[in-house]
Amino acid sequence: MNDPARTGRTNEPAFDAAFRAQLHSLFAWRRDVRRFRPDPLGEGIVERLVQAASLAPAVGLIQPWRFVTVDSSVRRGAIIASFKRMAIDTLARNVRTDLGTVLHLELAALREAPVHLAAFCDLSTTEVSPTMLEVATAMAVNTLWLDAHAYGIGVGWISMLEPDALTQALDVPKDWRYVGYFCIGYPADEPTEVQHEFETQEETAAQILRR
Amino acid sequence: MNDPARTGRTNEPAFDAAFRAQLHSLFAWRRDVRRFRPDPLGEGIVERLVQAASLAPAVGLIQPWRFVTVDSSVRRGAIIASFKRMAIDTLARNVRTDLGTVLHLELAALREAPVHLAAFCDLSTTEVSPTMLEVATAMAVNTLWLDAHAYGIGVGWISMLEPDALTQALDVPKDWRYVGYFCIGYPADEPTEVQHEFETQEETAAQILRR
Repeated sequence: MNDPARTGRTNEPAFDAAFRAQLHSLFAWRRDVRRFRPDPLGEGIVERLVQAASLAPAVGLIQPWRFVTVDSSVRRGAIIASFKRMAIDTLARNVRTDLGTVLHLELAALREAPVHLAAFCDLSTTEVSPTMLEVATAMAVNTLWLDAHAYGIGVGWISMLEPDALTQALDVPKDWRYVGYFCIGYPADEPTEVQHEFETQEETAAQILRR
Repeated sequence: MNDPARTGRTNEPAFDAAFRAQLHSLFAWRRDVRRFRPDPLGEGIVERLVQAASLAPAVGLIQPWRFVTVDSSVRRGAIIASFKRMAIDTLARNVRTDLGTVLHLELAALREAPVHLAAFCDLSTTEVSPTMLEVATAMAVNTLWLDAHAYGIGVGWISMLEPDALTQALDVPKDWRYVGYFCIGYPADEPTEVQHEFETQEETAAQILRR
């Protein structure tokens, strides 16, 4: 694929083996950060991350993603209240033994992270299915997450939020559908090992269904 | 973030400015490929792409994504028939002038791409909301797409498919929800320019809603 006869015809950059190895390392070491240092992100960093996110795929380049930063302590309080309601509900009916730890860490993230970023997709683009709009938005968040990790910035995904309460707390346009809520900042903790072992991944890879 | 006093405590790799610049270039040049060369991908390449995809975020590392490769000509025929039905429907009620071109190119992709890959999420993991499972799966596809592009392999997203017809044609477990359908292979065409201009992206970035 690095054949200059092909890539030489355009300005398209070629990516070499060294870059691909680093890219794999980025995929493997990217993690869900739960403990954040209180230090604010530098000026313009969130904007730059959203700019990278906006390079994600979307049919017709429609960019259906909408990002909201949440700074107001009143709104953050409403988000944390929603988290606690849902966490209590979930704990009450769940058997997963590590769930308490996960929720404890997510609450710490909500309290400590300097940046709260909510992702929505704009459903007013009626010519594309809602699923595609949501998928494109998720891809944009993934791009943002990878970009952040390359800069040493951590992202944590909050799993326990009520979409309706959140949409109301953030007072967003009515056509926006909630996709996810993310805490962003510099990690306070250190990863001790790559989270995904390739042995496990190879088992997953072997599970491709052939049709 | 490259402070050795921090990163030196673990094996976590640090990413430098050169890597980050290449990563941005990867984001910017990744595109939706529609015309494919008929050459098959090498042995094991799809498996390796799915392995990279499986490094994507998912709450509790549950890996809800399920990938299906479609080789059977009968099943590909059913997919193309579904595409045509939905395309005709959409064209009949749509005003977007470039839609005919988009559909023509997607049909070419379906006919020419050596690999068809369908992505589903497994809803049988009931402790996580369906939206989160879908979002995690979309992130996995985005990771796969970026990895493919780094290897000179193109991915094209097919926008016009009926989820029910597709799920039936591929005979997947009933708990699997359709997330997307992708054509994969070596691009037959050349990008003439980066698709996303940063000027445009800056406008998007400026649209972050503050709350």
